[in-house]
Amino acid sequence: MADIRVQNLKQPVDVAEYLFRRLREVGVRSVHGVPGDYNLVALDYLPACGLKWVGSVNELNAAYAADGYARVKKMAALVTTFGVGELSAINGVAGAFSERIPVVHVVGCPSTISQRDGMLLHHTLGNGDFNVFANMSADISCDVAKLNNPSEIAAQIDHALRQCWTHSRPVYVMLPTDMVQTKVEGERLQTPVDLSEPQNDPEREDYVVDVVMKYLRAAKHPVILVDACAIRHRVLGEVHDLIDGSNLPAFVTPMGKGAVNEQHPNYGGVYAGEGSHPQQVKDIVESSDLILTIGALKSDFNTAGFSYRTSQLPSIDFHSDHCTVRHSAYPGVRMKGVLRKIIDKVDHEELAAQASPTVENEAHKNLDNSPTITQAWFWPRVGEFLIDNDIVVTETGTANFGIWDTKFPKGVTALSQVLWGSIGWSVGACQGAALAARDDGGNRRTIVFVGDGSFQLTAQEVSTMIRHSLKPIIFVICNEGYTIERFIHGMDAEYNDISEWDYKGIVDVFGGQGTCKKFVVKTKDELNNLLTDADFNAAACLQFVELYMPKYDAPRALVMTAKASARVNAKVK
Amino acid sequence: MADIRVQNLKQPVDVAEYLFRRLREVGVRSVHGVPGDYNLVALDYLPACGLKWVGSVNELNAAYAADGYARVKKMAALVTTFGVGELSAINGVAGAFSERIPVVHVVGCPSTISQRDGMLLHHTLGNGDFNVFANMSADISCDVAKLNNPSEIAAQIDHALRQCWTHSRPVYVMLPTDMVQTKVEGERLQTPVDLSEPQNDPEREDYVVDVVMKYLRAAKHPVILVDACAIRHRVLGEVHDLIDGSNLPAFVTPMGKGAVNEQHPNYGGVYAGEGSHPQQVKDIVESSDLILTIGALKSDFNTAGFSYRTSQLPSIDFHSDHCTVRHSAYPGVRMKGVLRKIIDKVDHEELAAQASPTVENEAHKNLDNSPTITQAWFWPRVGEFLIDNDIVVTETGTANFGIWDTKFPKGVTALSQVLWGSIGWSVGACQGAALAARDDGGNRRTIVFVGDGSFQLTAQEVSTMIRHSLKPIIFVICNEGYTIERFIHGMDAEYNDISEWDYKGIVDVFGGQGTCKKFVVKTKDELNNLLTDADFNAAACLQFVELYMPKYDAPRALVMTAKASARVNAKVK
Repeated sequence: MADIRVQNLKQPVDVAEYLFRRLREVGVRSVHGVPGDYNLVALDYLPACGLKWVGSVNELNAAYAADGYARVKKMAALVTTFGVGELSAINGVAGAFSERIPVVHVVGCPSTISQRDGMLLHHTLGNGDFNVFANMSADISCDVAKLNNPSEIAAQIDHALRQCWTHSRPVYVMLPTDMVQTKVEGERLQTPVDLSEPQNDPEREDYVVDVVMKYLRAAKHPVILVDACAIRHRVLGEVHDLIDGSNLPAFVTPMGKGAVNEQHPNYGGVYAGEGSHPQQVKDIVESSDLILTIGALKSDFNTAGFSYRTSQLPSIDFHSDHCTVRHSAYPGVRMKGVLRKIIDKVDHEELAAQASPTVENEAHKNLDNSPTITQAWFWPRVGEFLIDNDIVVTETGTANFGIWDTKFPKGVTALSQVLWGSIGWSVGACQGAALAARDDGGNRRTIVFVGDGSFQLTAQEVSTMIRHSLKPIIFVICNEGYTIERFIHGMDAEYNDISEWDYKGIVDVFGGQGTCKKFVVKTKDELNNLLTDADFNAAACLQFVELYMPKYDAPRALVMTAKASARVNAKVK
Repeated sequence: MADIRVQNLKQPVDVAEYLFRRLREVGVRSVHGVPGDYNLVALDYLPACGLKWVGSVNELNAAYAADGYARVKKMAALVTTFGVGELSAINGVAGAFSERIPVVHVVGCPSTISQRDGMLLHHTLGNGDFNVFANMSADISCDVAKLNNPSEIAAQIDHALRQCWTHSRPVYVMLPTDMVQTKVEGERLQTPVDLSEPQNDPEREDYVVDVVMKYLRAAKHPVILVDACAIRHRVLGEVHDLIDGSNLPAFVTPMGKGAVNEQHPNYGGVYAGEGSHPQQVKDIVESSDLILTIGALKSDFNTAGFSYRTSQLPSIDFHSDHCTVRHSAYPGVRMKGVLRKIIDKVDHEELAAQASPTVENEAHKNLDNSPTITQAWFWPRVGEFLIDNDIVVTETGTANFGIWDTKFPKGVTALSQVLWGSIGWSVGACQGAALAARDDGGNRRTIVFVGDGSFQLTAQEVSTMIRHSLKPIIFVICNEGYTIERFIHGMDAEYNDISEWDYKGIVDVFGGQGTCKKFVVKTKDELNNLLTDADFNAAACLQFVELYMPKYDAPRALVMTAKASARVNAKVK
């Protein structure tokens, strides 16, 4: 039977080749993962399909790296092995689901024959159930493709890639060992996978546009607020055209940081309720009579502990798959088309535009008489160090909140995991981001800020960076433990302490001796010297900075959000 | 309402106290995990309940450590935080489920109020679904206890602990932040949790015993084969009484290694089909006319790639929850009661007992003229190094197969993950095992053998060992990559290579400078010198050995099993 089927194929290609050529077509150049016996044969196909194998030290790191890669390169792939490998990665993939990052997770699994026979194989629960892990992943994937039937596989792959792209979320692809070399129709490869934006119904779209325009023209103090999904659903072109066309003040949420060119005169800073920066942002946004929110994701840490005061305000929300105008919902009307039409209609002379607050890096305002590097001084100082098109990765904890006080140069891509908040993520994400930047060509710097406690979870991914000659700048903030947790509960609790490491020693142990640079920075002067050093700025090799900051110091936004979080945790009926 | 309920409690105690006092009662002394904001308040209760917080560097390591702890101390507890923490641990917990290890997984989660309101909290998928992670864990847990209702919590906890113990598998306990300090009835604590073995129906039990005795007395060459579940379900006392009473030759499977005192004259070695050691074991077992199998788990890696030739033979299988005698199944008849009655009835003079093969450490037979440390020479050499009551942890890969050729002294506890086979497990498991041994008092040594590729996944758990002044002996087998995978597929493939680390440098980087010892061993003589050094044998501090072995060398059993595995993977319909 199989032979007859193959004879009917016009251009037979192996399943692994089909999958990997499709991945390359949608922009993937490097594939993350860890080898395992159920995926080994598939990995043989990578080089011929123009894909590079990364080979992380473990699967969770690989998943974090794929997440970081996708945030820069728009799409990423992760290959793990059945059971042990995929479950080690699952927290990283769940993070990508939560944060809406398109990652194709390919799991090499036992052959369809072994599955049918319920064989008691290694990497199983010993109960003959080969679907249990796919079922787990189904809740954190926008598509599950079990490649069991050769006649369906090519369509399944194409469908999964479209879902991944359109929903900007992970998909799960289960590849049995006996399907890897099975033939499918290669002629399909001549037609690219359809990644086009689904079009709105024109009549409904026009209706929404008219309603929006009516409110917009009537508003006395309209503002624009840009959030995560504007980045994820690729409407940053529309965002900037709308800002230019409307001349309205534009703010970002913490998860929207980097979505707006912060050098643009209309950029007004970070709105996060009580945590807004600069502080006058709060007044302007909350006294507005119309907020145009683009791609909102109103989670606790994205709103400084739900301290938003906008929900009672007149607002128009643009989402990837619907819009709402005040109390009216328009399901199925996608923001991209609506925004484009608004841009075409908008005339800034018809609108009441107020001036944006001035945003600057206020390091000089936070100087004190001490040489100690404080959080308040550090983050604006970072803003002065950054250059156009840098990639900035911040870890959950002090870095994610501190970065609110950093004004970016033009073209900066900011990576953070504000909603999912899995500590250790940034080290893997940094690897993926740096690799994506290199795969994209050009010479963008990748800079990560990670606390010592978080760094310990995933430290060995530095080894993968060294192995692939990546050149990130790694700042490990050495402040003796889990700072964000101290501020939520247990300021001096032993469980918030960590083991003391020789952090910079990591570089040598992981093979970076002679090729990487290490620095220890304990004072403002030392940091200023480093950040103004031409060699350091050139980032010609991996650079590792041990950065000492006080144990009980934290960014103001963190202190406030942590208090709110503790209140929510403690609340009883 | 809440007040009235509390007034009706005779001895009100907080939920966290109830839970932790119960954990201590069932034998737990140290609690593994990583702090996270949803579990912080609960952690405050540990010291007063007589429990020590371990604080691993990440959750997967913590789960592996809990697994190792439970294998030595009979029960372990793991505390993680909602979403990010629990999912990072899930592969370790799945391993415990697969391998039947009792681990109580306590997940600190958002308050019942936040859950009810579907709040968009950090560590969620952003969809208001707070059950999705519990649902994932349900497939790898023998009980799920969501502690949402104060009036049910104490009973839920007691039930979960009994399930965990009886099934010897993980349970999942979801502890909302607002329940941690809620009062429950403490009077229950005066009655211990019921961990008693469920009793068989006496009539059915007697019937099975009679059938077994009939076959046993009639058999000409009966043998005993002991497997994993004899260890997991705590029938090793019965196993040894049966061997003594029957005088039959006794063999173990790879997963049963350590179940039988290998110094006992009736101990005949490891039966694993084609991989049996010594080789004559295969002949004796497969020519037997009655195999008494105790606690079988016939997975591929436990049978040298399904090379067992026993399924057609007359056999009696004793399981934790049923027995089978040839083709007759006796569901619900548990092995413990049956074995005890057989022991009472058995008279070795009535049985046809043949002699067991002689098992010895054959290092001398595997000497060659080279100084190189070969796998064939190394593993029996390890057997000469071990002493009574050592704890031996072997990693998936060369170590798990090599150890078949190691004859243990009396009282050795062997830890391996043959069925689940998650690489990196042994490093965490070693931490847990060493801690369990210390918690148990006494002075047992813990020795781990792990390949370089596997070590890289979880290396930083060495830091936790150092932090708690544990004193394991760590052998990292440096042979340049994923050896077991090379033998399955891709002998020289780049994806089976790893980054070159300065392994022993790890110790200093993780804070062990001055307190730990490091060794590099490249020849047989160097190894002999180390293994006969009195200080090294005394194991007075953490000792880390870089052990160099050839890249393309592997234990014979691994080579054979890997070939079988590749065949199964490649098989097409």
